[in-house]
Amino acid sequence: MSSSNLLLSLSQKAILLLQEDADKIEKLIEVQMENLTTRKCPLYEEVLDTQMYGLSREIDFAIRAELISDVAGKQILVKLERNLASLYEALNQK
Amino acid sequence: MSSSNLLLSLSQKAILLLQEDADKIEKLIEVQMENLTTRKCPLYEEVLDTQMYGLSREIDFAIRAELISDVAGKQILVKLERNLASLYEALNQK
Repeated sequence: MSSSNLLLSLSQKAILLLQEDADKIEKLIEVQMENLTTRKCPLYEEVLDTQMYGLSREIDFAIRAELISDVAGKQILVKLERNLASLYEALNQK
Repeated sequence: MSSSNLLLSLSQKAILLLQEDADKIEKLIEVQMENLTTRKCPLYEEVLDTQMYGLSREIDFAIRAELISDVAGKQILVKLERNLASLYEALNQK
């Protein structure tokens, strides 16, 4: 494999792994959204915050290790933060 | 650069970055150890736990991204965990 192909393959793998972790958080948000009308689990907010922090550390590391661009990393976080904000808004309106 | 050299360089960079983050936690532990005889800051434990969690997520990601070996990642964490255990032991003996 040429070095540019190797770098591309490592970058793609990094993005896939980060997206997988982001998807897990997305799933947590969806589940809580679906349960809005039933009951609010008090630990949900803490679990989501912890998971978001973990993902942001992974993304920050991937950027510093030059595996992904600053922009690609931010994109993953911004989308999740938007969904989280919607969830908290919905929770507050209850 | 050949692809094996590139991989070596990316791996070395990843290890350096993780070691830098581990050193920051090490510094936090040392500071708290030095302050044992004066006073215990109640937030210290929480800050250390959060930082340890962040580092473990970075290391886990680096292993999954095939930048570092499982063994190299575990080594960084084990050393820190040993020092943390000594700190908590010292705090409990106060």
